[in-house]
Amino acid sequence: MNVKTIKSAEILCVGTELLLGEVVNTNAAFIAGRLADLGVSVYHQSVVGDNPKRLREELSAALSRSDLVIMTGGLGPTYDDLTKETATELFGKRLVMDERALSEIRDFFERIGKRMAESNAKQALLPEGCIALYNKWGTAPGMIIEGDGELLGKVAILLPGPPREMRNMFDFYVAEYLAEHTEARIVSRNIHLIGIGESAAEELLRELIDESVNPSLAPYAKDGEVRFRVTASAKTAEEATEMCDALISRVLESEVAPFVYGIDVGSVEGAVVKALLKSGETLATVESCTGGLIGKRLTDLAGVSAVYLGGAVTYANEAKEKMVGVKHETLLAHGAVSEETAREMAEGIRAALGADYGISTTGIAGPGGGTPDKPVGTVYIAVASKDETRVKRLQLPPMRDREYIRTASATNALALLLEVKGIIGRK
Amino acid sequence: MNVKTIKSAEILCVGTELLLGEVVNTNAAFIAGRLADLGVSVYHQSVVGDNPKRLREELSAALSRSDLVIMTGGLGPTYDDLTKETATELFGKRLVMDERALSEIRDFFERIGKRMAESNAKQALLPEGCIALYNKWGTAPGMIIEGDGELLGKVAILLPGPPREMRNMFDFYVAEYLAEHTEARIVSRNIHLIGIGESAAEELLRELIDESVNPSLAPYAKDGEVRFRVTASAKTAEEATEMCDALISRVLESEVAPFVYGIDVGSVEGAVVKALLKSGETLATVESCTGGLIGKRLTDLAGVSAVYLGGAVTYANEAKEKMVGVKHETLLAHGAVSEETAREMAEGIRAALGADYGISTTGIAGPGGGTPDKPVGTVYIAVASKDETRVKRLQLPPMRDREYIRTASATNALALLLEVKGIIGRK
Repeated sequence: MNVKTIKSAEILCVGTELLLGEVVNTNAAFIAGRLADLGVSVYHQSVVGDNPKRLREELSAALSRSDLVIMTGGLGPTYDDLTKETATELFGKRLVMDERALSEIRDFFERIGKRMAESNAKQALLPEGCIALYNKWGTAPGMIIEGDGELLGKVAILLPGPPREMRNMFDFYVAEYLAEHTEARIVSRNIHLIGIGESAAEELLRELIDESVNPSLAPYAKDGEVRFRVTASAKTAEEATEMCDALISRVLESEVAPFVYGIDVGSVEGAVVKALLKSGETLATVESCTGGLIGKRLTDLAGVSAVYLGGAVTYANEAKEKMVGVKHETLLAHGAVSEETAREMAEGIRAALGADYGISTTGIAGPGGGTPDKPVGTVYIAVASKDETRVKRLQLPPMRDREYIRTASATNALALLLEVKGIIGRK
Repeated sequence: MNVKTIKSAEILCVGTELLLGEVVNTNAAFIAGRLADLGVSVYHQSVVGDNPKRLREELSAALSRSDLVIMTGGLGPTYDDLTKETATELFGKRLVMDERALSEIRDFFERIGKRMAESNAKQALLPEGCIALYNKWGTAPGMIIEGDGELLGKVAILLPGPPREMRNMFDFYVAEYLAEHTEARIVSRNIHLIGIGESAAEELLRELIDESVNPSLAPYAKDGEVRFRVTASAKTAEEATEMCDALISRVLESEVAPFVYGIDVGSVEGAVVKALLKSGETLATVESCTGGLIGKRLTDLAGVSAVYLGGAVTYANEAKEKMVGVKHETLLAHGAVSEETAREMAEGIRAALGADYGISTTGIAGPGGGTPDKPVGTVYIAVASKDETRVKRLQLPPMRDREYIRTASATNALALLLEVKGIIGRK
């Protein structure tokens, strides 16, 4: 084996669509995240177009700085796809036809019922001696090229540009290769909080954050939620996991514990669905300012039908009356954005669908519609259960945009259910 | 003025969170898109961390290759924010306190009701002679540094890392500066199509695509929609706009015309809302497999309340019966995913809310739930009006994921309304 332990890497993405800003570079973030998990340091990412001179310069510079270069894009069938040709030449190799790659490309076209163009055969040419990464998700095979001579110990991994193909290929082949050629095992876990701001959470955990180096503890805030990332590096994954768990236990004994809604749950809707599956209860939603966003987020999760019955989007006042029985007088006396309306909405949808819980939102997402009493960002959320209806007024920062206000409203409404169920909240 | 016409640029984003893959680099795509519109060529984008040596090397290399380097990130108040210090040193300048920047930072903290930390004063230090970009959206001012001596004619523009601040600052200050220092005016317009695949659309326009150089005509596909981008470069924006318009007219006379739902409308929901505002009609939705996504997309648009009344999310079968009156026998005889159920859903929500149009979706988004008759990707969409109810069966590729199937279902359901209204579709 020519490859020593890989400690540093760079990411080099090839594509005119990236240079023109037509596509956001999600590939770089995906690969960077995976490399971080493997303890490989990434000091540099770049994007270049399908230009052989610049591609060669950039790859050469990257290989001189780092043990590994992961490239994406430019493996297509057309004459301006040059990533493979450039890398092969730089490594001093020849391209040879890989019969298995060729037959798999043929099979792919057969499977989707299309004729293979002659140009696709070019995609089956691979540098001699490389590790071929046969593509089960598209046509272009990827490859791992291990250097010799001047490039002894250096590795280039070439992956296709379409994110779905790239991600699948990375997790199917590249992860294992890298696990064999890296030393440390990095494990990260996420502690999800809601109902507390980032700076307040950081303040409460200040000492623990400062003293935690490995495992480390770092806060992140997004859309009204806070996440603490716990990361440990050790010789084995088991050891790293144990180190994470010990630190998580300390966080769960701290003053932020009442705000923790889950560990590695991914999202508050995930935590809600998990909790309801466990208790065998059902949920219905009625949304005004969020306009279907809560339903959308719940139904992003496959298999949610066991707990989520559905609901109403009551954007107009009439819809609030007709669909969930909000009283006309309530709307007249208190307005659509009020504690009373939120309450009647949640109770109404719970009754209408015979659910265990009803969740509602009604508020002013902006940019227009604010008043001195109820500025943009005023949102009422409610959760009705058989025992009680809990209503909360949120005052989200009016300087934030409509998307933020809607996202944070949906997140807080879902979190309120966790509070009613006793999963989060000060006792 | 030291700055000649800017023809080439690079984008250099600074941030450990980008290198770790915790954040997707949307800043690079935004800036690249804006530069493309100005006719500035971008051959290179990079990401480095807050490391002064690598930052200096990368900036120096970028300035040697290109007229302009736009940097984002690393303008924060902490000691590891080094972008400004590094660029200032490279341009041979000194940092001096900018009193206006200082007082604006103080004002910002007052406005959000927080105390300014001493470290924030560091953000008001700017390179002597730069053009200050005062930040109305956060604390860190941006700056335009024009080179002299060895860097005569070179420009660096430093912008804050948070996307909202960066975008606002770009459009408020930088766009005008660049317009003054670039030669060509590039105008792009988008022709939005639905109901036709990318390759079929490309086939129909093959000759026009091939003969169109300036203005150019290029197809893009995303989530079940096709977009043709028309781009013209000319001395003035007026001239470029006229060139685009002429090519758009030819596309609207071609065989793809029946599938065009709008020019520069941004989205199919935007086209729907625009059409309904014009006709003074209203809309209600009832969603099963899309679970609220159509409502969410409609209510992403501010001011939609004039046309969108609301609707129902009928994820469970019972909700279909209770909320929109789908008959129990229909569900028993044909199933929830059927033409009949889609029809009754659309008619039911139209009646329930007294809307001019009712839109429905019911289908199998996967990954589970498929049958030989109705595999994953089978979706029925319907639009009910006072005159008719039109139902369509979609067979979306089962190899695509849940998110794609849901997005494409929502898009097609909205497009079906445009078809019923006679805006798109073969006559």
